[in-house]
Amino acid sequence: MAQNIVIVGGVALGSKAACRFKRLEPRSKVTIIDQDRFISYGGCGIPFYVSGDVSDVNDLRKTSFHMLRDEAFFRDCKDIEVLTQTRARRIDRENKRLHILRPDGTADSLAYDQLVLGTGSRPRRLSIPGADLPMVHTAANLNDARTIKELVTKGRVRRAVIIGGGFIGLEMAEALADMWEVDTAVVEYFDQIMPGFVGPQFARMAQQQMEKHDVRFFLDEEVQAIEGTDTVEAVMTNKRRLEADLVIIAIGAAPNVDLARKAGLRIGPTGAIAVDEHMRTSDPTIFSGGDCTEIRNLITGQPGYYPLGSMANRQGRVIGTNLAGGSAMFKGAVGSFVIKTFEAALAGTGLSLESARKAGFDAVSVQVAQLDRAHFYPDKAMIYLELVVERNSRRILGIQGFGEEGDAVVGRINMVAALLENRPTIDQLSNVELAYSPPFSSAMDVLNALANAAENMLDGHYQPIDAHGFAEKWDNGDDNLLILDCRARQDGQAFEEKYPRRWVNIPQDELRRRIGEIPADRELILLCNTGVRSYEAQLNLRDMGLTGPVSVQGGMVSLNKCGLDL
Amino acid sequence: MAQNIVIVGGVALGSKAACRFKRLEPRSKVTIIDQDRFISYGGCGIPFYVSGDVSDVNDLRKTSFHMLRDEAFFRDCKDIEVLTQTRARRIDRENKRLHILRPDGTADSLAYDQLVLGTGSRPRRLSIPGADLPMVHTAANLNDARTIKELVTKGRVRRAVIIGGGFIGLEMAEALADMWEVDTAVVEYFDQIMPGFVGPQFARMAQQQMEKHDVRFFLDEEVQAIEGTDTVEAVMTNKRRLEADLVIIAIGAAPNVDLARKAGLRIGPTGAIAVDEHMRTSDPTIFSGGDCTEIRNLITGQPGYYPLGSMANRQGRVIGTNLAGGSAMFKGAVGSFVIKTFEAALAGTGLSLESARKAGFDAVSVQVAQLDRAHFYPDKAMIYLELVVERNSRRILGIQGFGEEGDAVVGRINMVAALLENRPTIDQLSNVELAYSPPFSSAMDVLNALANAAENMLDGHYQPIDAHGFAEKWDNGDDNLLILDCRARQDGQAFEEKYPRRWVNIPQDELRRRIGEIPADRELILLCNTGVRSYEAQLNLRDMGLTGPVSVQGGMVSLNKCGLDL
Repeated sequence: MAQNIVIVGGVALGSKAACRFKRLEPRSKVTIIDQDRFISYGGCGIPFYVSGDVSDVNDLRKTSFHMLRDEAFFRDCKDIEVLTQTRARRIDRENKRLHILRPDGTADSLAYDQLVLGTGSRPRRLSIPGADLPMVHTAANLNDARTIKELVTKGRVRRAVIIGGGFIGLEMAEALADMWEVDTAVVEYFDQIMPGFVGPQFARMAQQQMEKHDVRFFLDEEVQAIEGTDTVEAVMTNKRRLEADLVIIAIGAAPNVDLARKAGLRIGPTGAIAVDEHMRTSDPTIFSGGDCTEIRNLITGQPGYYPLGSMANRQGRVIGTNLAGGSAMFKGAVGSFVIKTFEAALAGTGLSLESARKAGFDAVSVQVAQLDRAHFYPDKAMIYLELVVERNSRRILGIQGFGEEGDAVVGRINMVAALLENRPTIDQLSNVELAYSPPFSSAMDVLNALANAAENMLDGHYQPIDAHGFAEKWDNGDDNLLILDCRARQDGQAFEEKYPRRWVNIPQDELRRRIGEIPADRELILLCNTGVRSYEAQLNLRDMGLTGPVSVQGGMVSLNKCGLDL
Repeated sequence: MAQNIVIVGGVALGSKAACRFKRLEPRSKVTIIDQDRFISYGGCGIPFYVSGDVSDVNDLRKTSFHMLRDEAFFRDCKDIEVLTQTRARRIDRENKRLHILRPDGTADSLAYDQLVLGTGSRPRRLSIPGADLPMVHTAANLNDARTIKELVTKGRVRRAVIIGGGFIGLEMAEALADMWEVDTAVVEYFDQIMPGFVGPQFARMAQQQMEKHDVRFFLDEEVQAIEGTDTVEAVMTNKRRLEADLVIIAIGAAPNVDLARKAGLRIGPTGAIAVDEHMRTSDPTIFSGGDCTEIRNLITGQPGYYPLGSMANRQGRVIGTNLAGGSAMFKGAVGSFVIKTFEAALAGTGLSLESARKAGFDAVSVQVAQLDRAHFYPDKAMIYLELVVERNSRRILGIQGFGEEGDAVVGRINMVAALLENRPTIDQLSNVELAYSPPFSSAMDVLNALANAAENMLDGHYQPIDAHGFAEKWDNGDDNLLILDCRARQDGQAFEEKYPRRWVNIPQDELRRRIGEIPADRELILLCNTGVRSYEAQLNLRDMGLTGPVSVQGGMVSLNKCGLDL
């Protein structure tokens, strides 16, 4: 029997659910309402429109075969009615009617058999003086996108301040600094960028990459006011005044749940609409998905909030199937992400070390640095990976990666994402089978090596120290500290000469016979280029009875990548 | 208690097992014997040395930090004794002694507590006239590599014939044709390249890519003789004579099991040494791994043979752990692979459709073509994927991919490889969570779309036809055939004009109102650019009662990529 489906919100979730459903039930009627003029656009493309990578804003509204996804497209191609600039006012669950306000201001109502909520999110705002000034924008929809792009193309932006060092903030910073050479500063409340997603060292790597392109960062600073009268003049933090003629607020998104809340639907602990594994709300005739909806974090088992276009698309398909009587499931998210930072990519899945500990896991992490393909192959780049593991169970909780061959980084992260749902242990990752050929991977791939390093650490063979730990010891100037550099002479000698009292270079192939030279009473830190030789040196020293020395994980390349200048 | 470990073979497996073991038991003694002068080299790098990508053959023997892995390296850095040019003659299992022949011809024996066999493989030879001529080579070790490279660099090779269209054959073909502009022909016994690994269409895609670079292919031909007197003159197949001054035989590898067989160790059905999940042979004090050893295929559960450096490395570590009393496991292989074919990559994991059917599965496959990142992002490439599925259980049996962004192709294949061990169904792949950002993936990634296409097919919504099926119908000239082209007018009109009786272009947005124009008595094939619109058209027609029409999977881009010239 033909149904009457009404969908509130037509960006990603709503339009996907509508199209999937219509393919399964072509005789049923589907109506999408949206308060905006634009529907079914790729909002995640906004920074790339601002940067100029995407030249026409309408490209974000088109199919891959260049058709504009407007009302006519949905009518002619999909037999779906779309009502734009139409507001949903109230759900009358008892009578199964959605009350709406049409563009001309007239009230109306639509009967439904099943209803879908894809009401999305809104950008979080700051409650500070000046937040309403002109030239203070968010980057959440196509109107924002057009306004900002027009300002930069007209040369009206010399200095921009971006508030928030998360996904949108960093992408907008790159967009402004790269193509338009805007003097761009990012202010972040926490003491690192991408807080909650990556550890401090991987955050430093990405930050350094962006600093090379003249993006400035002010971490651990609170924005207190935006100054200006007719337009923006400066951003005041608790530490400084940053001049600006454009301010972009990118401090995250909050789910739009007013309609659901008023209708008495269950709102979850994250503040978003609660749904079951079939994406049904507490009313079985109402589905919800996308940015207004909370889903389960598959690592912690707890409710989570993932406002991301890829989630909305997959959830939309699940809803479309279930509207047609199917029982498709969306179990939740492992939390995969990636962000391009100029030439590099920062990516991850699962939990960071900090998030894992916050979630109550007895978590540890280990880092490796290794080339992303055979070391003898000419085109290659270093990949930096951090694996987060639960200590006793050896369960993998998450992984983060950084590197300049973005697809290669993302490929490794995705491989772990595929494992994560099945509660893998490090043994599984140690033997995970990557397609091998020298132009694409190593015979012992960095991903296998990462699991092996975790195993060595948990088994007590490997005592790593990270860049932060190294810097702390190095900077406090303790005379007892001695860096044992296991690299070849051409790499290590200059450091030995520069720091004669704190640095000794004993190449790996000399260590065994020169082991007597190593003072037993010094605090030893072992170092090589990537951490492989220093690990082996550590084992040699342990065999001599020296159990104290630690080995710098990821080696000199990681110290450099984190910005340590030795 | 310190042990005495003897390892036969020091390329990948042996040296890895030795190093891992020594890290765990530094006080134990390890001796590697190898019949060659060179040990611990990256044999899989040989084609890249011949191509010139790797300039010095010693680069294949070095660590990532540029140390030559020769006897001195193993002695000084690893405390491992290596005896090169030393042959293993016999294992005396009762007395735990390995009888050897030293370089000077003297016989000797080494006592062992545990023994490791890493005797590797040898290239298969052809028993045909002329197979022993000079200038007939294999590409299996560094001696071959040096000889071939010297010949091409000295300009002594104008025409080469490569026998075998598998991994080594194709890599060598690229090496010779690309850098050295050798007129290169590949002769393959089967009717496609990469037989057993990919289906005929993906083989065609890779072949076409190589043909663009002037590599010639002769498929379904049997080499019967190699002509020449002092040197090679030509290769005679059952169909033609191919002139050549160099012949490379690349028809696979056979495990070296003589030593094991003579010692009475169990040889498996593949002809390689049988081991348990701890890599132990039928003698619990003897381990075996790498190219001489068979392991389980994790899809079929049957013994398989995977002579690949990455397998040897991971197995070597497992053996090293177990030599030291551990109980590490190597469960088997899912069969991941990748080969670079000039700018593109052909990759896969699990079973091809043909291998799946041979293994007794009721298997079907589905193909999609989609961009590897957001369609509005400027840098992007098409990825072609084929998913092999067991019909009733919906279990994923394998995936193959082809595309010009190699890392992006490999990343998707690896993600499925990670799933494969857990017997995933298409539902899992439909929701697998790739890290999403427009520069790296689509909101509905090609991998999710592939699983969705499989679901649609198995649910009876989607009736695909592949390039081969299309070509058969197109070529037989049946007047009843009608191609319904759902692309926009600028794409479809020229075809309608070129084939007025067999081709009609009704753009997607006109189909609904022009549906009356479609003749019910014609055999309809629906076509668009990648298969998305033609699938939707198929659903529209079904809704009208037309259940016959099929849709070209992967669309026009796949037909073109397979070499169909319409």
